[in-house]
Amino acid sequence: MLVEFGQTRVMCTASVTEGVPPWRRDSGLGWLTAEYAMLPAATHTRSGRESVKGKVGGRTQEISRLVGRSLRACIDLAAIGENTIALDCDVLQADGGTRTAAITGAYVALSDAVTYLGAAGGLADPQPISCGIAAVSVGVVDGRVRLDLPYEEDSRAEVDMNVVATDTGTLVEIQGTGEGATFPRSTLDKLLDSALAGCEQLFTVQKEALALPYPGVLPEPSESKKK
Amino acid sequence: MLVEFGQTRVMCTASVTEGVPPWRRDSGLGWLTAEYAMLPAATHTRSGRESVKGKVGGRTQEISRLVGRSLRACIDLAAIGENTIALDCDVLQADGGTRTAAITGAYVALSDAVTYLGAAGGLADPQPISCGIAAVSVGVVDGRVRLDLPYEEDSRAEVDMNVVATDTGTLVEIQGTGEGATFPRSTLDKLLDSALAGCEQLFTVQKEALALPYPGVLPEPSESKKK
Amino acid sequence: MLVEFGQTRVMCTASVTEGVPPWRRDSGLGWLTAEYAMLPAATHTRSGRESVKGKVGGRTQEISRLVGRSLRACIDLAAIGENTIALDCDVLQADGGTRTAAITGAYVALSDAVTYLGAAGGLADPQPISCGIAAVSVGVVDGRVRLDLPYEEDSRAEVDMNVVATDTGTLVEIQGTGEGATFPRSTLDKLLDSALAGCEQLFTVQKEALALPYPGVLPEPSESKKK
Amino acid sequence: MLVEFGQTRVMCTASVTEGVPPWRRDSGLGWLTAEYAMLPAATHTRSGRESVKGKVGGRTQEISRLVGRSLRACIDLAAIGENTIALDCDVLQADGGTRTAAITGAYVALSDAVTYLGAAGGLADPQPISCGIAAVSVGVVDGRVRLDLPYEEDSRAEVDMNVVATDTGTLVEIQGTGEGATFPRSTLDKLLDSALAGCEQLFTVQKEALALPYPGVLPEPSESKKK
Amino acid sequence: MLVEFGQTRVMCTASVTEGVPPWRRDSGLGWLTAEYAMLPAATHTRSGRESVKGKVGGRTQEISRLVGRSLRACIDLAAIGENTIALDCDVLQADGGTRTAAITGAYVALSDAVTYLGAAGGLADPQPISCGIAAVSVGVVDGRVRLDLPYEEDSRAEVDMNVVATDTGTLVEIQGTGEGATFPRSTLDKLLDSALAGCEQLFTVQKEALALPYPGVLPEPSESKKK
Amino acid sequence: MLVEFGQTRVMCTASVTEGVPPWRRDSGLGWLTAEYAMLPAATHTRSGRESVKGKVGGRTQEISRLVGRSLRACIDLAAIGENTIALDCDVLQADGGTRTAAITGAYVALSDAVTYLGAAGGLADPQPISCGIAAVSVGVVDGRVRLDLPYEEDSRAEVDMNVVATDTGTLVEIQGTGEGATFPRSTLDKLLDSALAGCEQLFTVQKEALALPYPGVLPEPSESKKK
Repeated sequence: MLVEFGQTRVMCTASVTEGVPPWRRDSGLGWLTAEYAMLPAATHTRSGRESVKGKVGGRTQEISRLVGRSLRACIDLAAIGENTIALDCDVLQADGGTRTAAITGAYVALSDAVTYLGAAGGLADPQPISCGIAAVSVGVVDGRVRLDLPYEEDSRAEVDMNVVATDTGTLVEIQGTGEGATFPRSTLDKLLDSALAGCEQLFTVQKEALALPYPGVLPEPSESKKK
Repeated sequence: MLVEFGQTRVMCTASVTEGVPPWRRDSGLGWLTAEYAMLPAATHTRSGRESVKGKVGGRTQEISRLVGRSLRACIDLAAIGENTIALDCDVLQADGGTRTAAITGAYVALSDAVTYLGAAGGLADPQPISCGIAAVSVGVVDGRVRLDLPYEEDSRAEVDMNVVATDTGTLVEIQGTGEGATFPRSTLDKLLDSALAGCEQLFTVQKEALALPYPGVLPEPSESKKK
Repeated sequence: MLVEFGQTRVMCTASVTEGVPPWRRDSGLGWLTAEYAMLPAATHTRSGRESVKGKVGGRTQEISRLVGRSLRACIDLAAIGENTIALDCDVLQADGGTRTAAITGAYVALSDAVTYLGAAGGLADPQPISCGIAAVSVGVVDGRVRLDLPYEEDSRAEVDMNVVATDTGTLVEIQGTGEGATFPRSTLDKLLDSALAGCEQLFTVQKEALALPYPGVLPEPSESKKK
Repeated sequence: MLVEFGQTRVMCTASVTEGVPPWRRDSGLGWLTAEYAMLPAATHTRSGRESVKGKVGGRTQEISRLVGRSLRACIDLAAIGENTIALDCDVLQADGGTRTAAITGAYVALSDAVTYLGAAGGLADPQPISCGIAAVSVGVVDGRVRLDLPYEEDSRAEVDMNVVATDTGTLVEIQGTGEGATFPRSTLDKLLDSALAGCEQLFTVQKEALALPYPGVLPEPSESKKK
Repeated sequence: MLVEFGQTRVMCTASVTEGVPPWRRDSGLGWLTAEYAMLPAATHTRSGRESVKGKVGGRTQEISRLVGRSLRACIDLAAIGENTIALDCDVLQADGGTRTAAITGAYVALSDAVTYLGAAGGLADPQPISCGIAAVSVGVVDGRVRLDLPYEEDSRAEVDMNVVATDTGTLVEIQGTGEGATFPRSTLDKLLDSALAGCEQLFTVQKEALALPYPGVLPEPSESKKK
Repeated sequence: MLVEFGQTRVMCTASVTEGVPPWRRDSGLGWLTAEYAMLPAATHTRSGRESVKGKVGGRTQEISRLVGRSLRACIDLAAIGENTIALDCDVLQADGGTRTAAITGAYVALSDAVTYLGAAGGLADPQPISCGIAAVSVGVVDGRVRLDLPYEEDSRAEVDMNVVATDTGTLVEIQGTGEGATFPRSTLDKLLDSALAGCEQLFTVQKEALALPYPGVLPEPSESKKK
């Protein structure tokens, strides 16, 4: 499915493959992994392709790990048996908040894949997803707390924070960084208020998307795989 | 812009950057390069990400070189000065004929970029593109010549041929391969007849796309870069 | 200098080299970068050497980026001119909390290097470090908040949080993750209380170390470089 | 064996190893693969060694794939059981047409290896090679069709074509490219006439070489392996 | 354990892991391998990290191979069964003679590991180590033979030689190189005299170290693994 | 030129390119570097291609370094100005002693290149080569000293030694290793006697080869480059 947050567009797909990584074999548990990447032309100035450079950059790996960790928080991996769900989040167009858009979209792709697996009889537990997951970026720009910053504002934010939350009111992950400045604890609190309110809106959008026959705003490229 | 041929979807963008590769410096000529890639989830069975493997596969490099070579056939690189046009062709969904779709779409992205460069006063020659370029795949399936094979037919074709042609009736590149079988010269002739007819249709579609305010079937992610 | 937190030992050194990365040239500003790594025998079970594998893992890159970002928060990079300070944090023995030990130790190595640079007349501003930086890990184990977890406890923590703070009472970075579980906002607050108290103790230790003729607990291998 | 076409010299050897690649296991079929490479000093200006660069270039991979595909067209892989024939084509001296020399020489090395395997009782079918394979390069230089271009002419050819054919009169592969120019279909026909005539001559030479006790123009370095 | 030769400090550890490399499986024999590396800040001028460069340099590989080969000379690999002993020699501070310090220290780490294995009942032969191993560097500086050169002298030595010897009076490896000069056989003899005398001193030091409850000059970071 | 020692064949070529590595710029001195490699089919059992593996093995790097160091011992690098001589030693067929054959052959290729450079007026000093260089391998097999071991004997040698010597009676490099056994100093002396006698024979052969219009036993592939 294709997620759009303002000018940011991320294509999120879930693929299920047989087997798990070596270190997890014979555990009876499945695995969920994620890969985030950005197309070279997604940014204002074309960035080099990581496959051509021959290595995955630190930022890409860091976000891939974050997406995987965030989504593993909502799924019971015993229910899918020794299979692996791969979430691919490819940024087609970037304008700030790509990592949080990736998490929010990956949740919908994951839910959809699980529904499909359940219909195909591939689940031990019919409801392996325990809660909804969404993520937002918040920041302080010109001294004021702002939700979901576009690139132009993000690049001059004094504090930048990403929050991953569940629809049951708890936190999955929180990462806050002063950008060339440090920040008092009171700012952290305000940022968190704003972020949690933002997540509430996203849970509503996700539920609407999942209620559609095919979730998402565009005809899904990945849909053909499942039918 | 996003190109669709049946179930195949390729995102083609053109980016202009200052400078040329070292071996071409101080020549007064520009350069045009292309990179083709496939998203992991584009195929029926998820394929590993080349950035994660740490190297670009032979097939990917071969197609990237073909796309670049094909598009360099239509442009006067002296007109753009010592600048580089990078064509990115990313396959979002694959169902056969991705390399020819990439070439056909890349031509539209290139034309569009050149129009934009001209409007910005960045061209020595106002019409650096000398002809249209399109490409099709043709094959022999069950003994019959077929145009633009979907994956299911492509994978059992006896002969597979890719033809890149210009709208002035000449050939840019022809690659024909017997797949587990060899073929007589008479088959080559029939495949070529079919391919050239197919290209004629594509030239019409390309002209229609380029006549639109924004070429292509979808709101273009790359459009924002140019305005 | 060699930092010890319980059984965790990290060797932190600061090296100054002329010049800055290409994207920063002609800015008049210096740069500070960090590299974190773990010796193969530092962990209970020997881990493969990243140089032999031919690539730096995601975790290593993520921590290197965190250390660099944290230390850049305290230094005025205009004062060092177009030079680069490289902080190397090599874990000789790991028993939990290696990334926070690295940050805390790197601050001492950085202060020491800056003092040396100042004495050599290489600083525009005699006091380019604006505040102290220290970091701690906190977690929830068996439902209770715990500071500076050893490996055995860290591996079964329900929530894990790293906090980087300044000695002026502000935050530089906060990263909190539910490990197989999510956590309420009230837990976040408790963890933060504990972390900030822990940082206060570290600021005292750092000041003592910097007051010694040679900072640190062991004869410093890197000391010879500075004299 | 060592193949010479004018100043071009390519060393072609066939090695048989037990087993097949993973994706082909338990099929009962063998596999044939090829690797093409150029020694650094083979060209007029020394080219860097690909092993030192750490990656195989696009051109090298493209030719390796072409050689393998071409030779697979003549052999019944069921006859060799689950074994792999590796064809190595190393260019000792390059003066145009290295890829077609490699294919033509690899056929002789392959025939020789198959004869040896048959004598050793390792073949299900005593005649697994169904036809002869040879390849030539043709081009248009200064408006005229030329066969087997040396480097000096090749580098200024307007059209360049490689043709792989069988001694039963059919085509295996055809690759034609306009070099900075496009070409009409009538040129394609003339190039093909010339190429097929050239292949006829090569089939005669190959048969002569295979009729010798040890095929080829030089004492074979690889011969000792077989006795 | 940490080895110090003048200003050179090398951390040497031995780790035992189950299994052997593929080519040695089902032989009933164990394996011993070594990895030598230098921390970036070990040298006067910081050197780049090999993991970041993505490849291990020639010098590093050469020394790793030398250390492994030298230590395999003293141990009966049948006695440890199909297990692998990995010796890690990490140079914390370099001032000449790092490779010979690594070998000398690795012997102590190996002896210690074997004693531990024996106590744990993991040895077929209670005394699998047949002799002591030590190594020294010798050189000719300003026309005079010198033992164990520090970096300043080493870098202007006319001849440089590394000798690995046993405490039973035999040689394991000898490597002598003229540095920008060649040398007569009489010099070789003098260097060897000096080297063998130097090794005798080291055998005494090693025995003292091994007689301590924990061998070595510092509390061993690797010790915790064994108890 | 092509060197043959028994069944071992090594192709050695010297190429001169403008410029020197960065660390040597503006010194007024030239540089000499060497690269050794083995074709996959050179050994009895085909070995994988290092370019395909993506990295150069330790053994290959070690020998490349040895060849370069050995040949630098005989040439005055000031005489060639800031140019680089690259020696490529590619083993076409291996039967023991490939590294010493490479050094011995590389000397002839180097002399030839220097003669050519001198004739072209590219040398400050008309005689930049101060001595001849040759190398042999010696070993102890079944308790007896043997010169220039073929593979079958080399693989069961108890001691293996490579000696690089000059035709003025001095040593350039000596590397002796006990293979699964150690050796007394008296054996070292006998090996050296045998090696130096062997080198004498090679100096005679080299002089004969260099006296020919084109040095070497076969029509030289690299010759065309120089005329």
